Amino acid sequence: MAKPTAGPEIERLIALLARLPGLGHRSARKAALTLLKRRTDLLEPLAAALAEAASRIVACENCGNLDSLSPCTICRDAERDASLIIVVEEIGDLWALERAGVVKGRYHVLGGHLSPLDGIGPGELNIGRLIERAVPPVEEILLALNATVEGQATAHYITDQLRGRDLKITRLAQGVPIGGELDYLDEGTLAAAIKSRRML
Amino acid sequence: MAKPTAGPEIERLIALLARLPGLGHRSARKAALTLLKRRTDLLEPLAAALAEAASRIVACENCGNLDSLSPCTICRDAERDASLIIVVEEIGDLWALERAGVVKGRYHVLGGHLSPLDGIGPGELNIGRLIERAVPPVEEILLALNATVEGQATAHYITDQLRGRDLKITRLAQGVPIGGELDYLDEGTLAAAIKSRRML
Repeated sequence: MAKPTAGPEIERLIALLARLPGLGHRSARKAALTLLKRRTDLLEPLAAALAEAASRIVACENCGNLDSLSPCTICRDAERDASLIIVVEEIGDLWALERAGVVKGRYHVLGGHLSPLDGIGPGELNIGRLIERAVPPVEEILLALNATVEGQATAHYITDQLRGRDLKITRLAQGVPIGGELDYLDEGTLAAAIKSRRML
Repeated sequence: MAKPTAGPEIERLIALLARLPGLGHRSARKAALTLLKRRTDLLEPLAAALAEAASRIVACENCGNLDSLSPCTICRDAERDASLIIVVEEIGDLWALERAGVVKGRYHVLGGHLSPLDGIGPGELNIGRLIERAVPPVEEILLALNATVEGQATAHYITDQLRGRDLKITRLAQGVPIGGELDYLDEGTLAAAIKSRRML
């Protein structure tokens, strides 16, 4: 712990900023200074945006997304394909897929992955509501989970829970990322890419 | 500019966080998610700390430090050596010296360095007030400015302004940093270290 050097209000601000991912104590100090120097165009708007987020943003009762509405804007969007639910671990994954803009289904955010050693079982994840949602008109459940041991274990668990229903359960393809150089890829990715090789 | 994927409140929060030094758009998204997930122990306290900083933190009329008091806690501290003013470019430099805890004078924050190409002349810096303060009981002005061209030009300008007064004007020593390996040091540092070499 660094010795306090500024007043208690500034030290408290630095300590809170340092708890954000990507900011250590040193960069939190820089961020605090920037905020204090740019009071009207940064500090005050950020304080207001945080207060508004705290009071208005809620988790969607349907899919677990964060929005100022529940059900969220995506769940309410009539243009979305109602037959497809894309299951993701975290809201950041939902944002990544929306940025890519390649699929227009609805989502289901689990809030993490199964991790028995950390005490994360099915009850800790938003799985029960997914099972409820997996009924017509839903035809496909795309498990867009991380290609990690935990992500894949979670995918298996969900597949088991949905067994016997008239549903297509799919997962993301695995292989060489676009722009990827073979020399820098791990063996697991290369093995997946070779196993799922396609005819030209 | 990334395509908006979350609601407007969240996008606004991300855009503001991305303007902090050390946070790009990607890490700002991560930070926003962390804030939204940790509402009571992080989002709400940070909103409150920012609002308090916006309403309470002011620049010290005497030295330019930021504090909830003006004159600031350091300027009011009777234990400080009243004969020494340490001149720094930015408040971050003041904090760095306070953390090091090796000198117990009072400070004077210039708010930057002379940079004619950027339109920063003496009038843009907090130099006038320094000239006013440089009277007894002050005996020494330590110019703790960056070892850059601009920092040194600023030091020369201040030295000129104070010429003729009964004051000791000093600057920080230059040389090999503690733990520094010669192999990784630039030629300027090596030249300074050799020029100022000391007898053992």
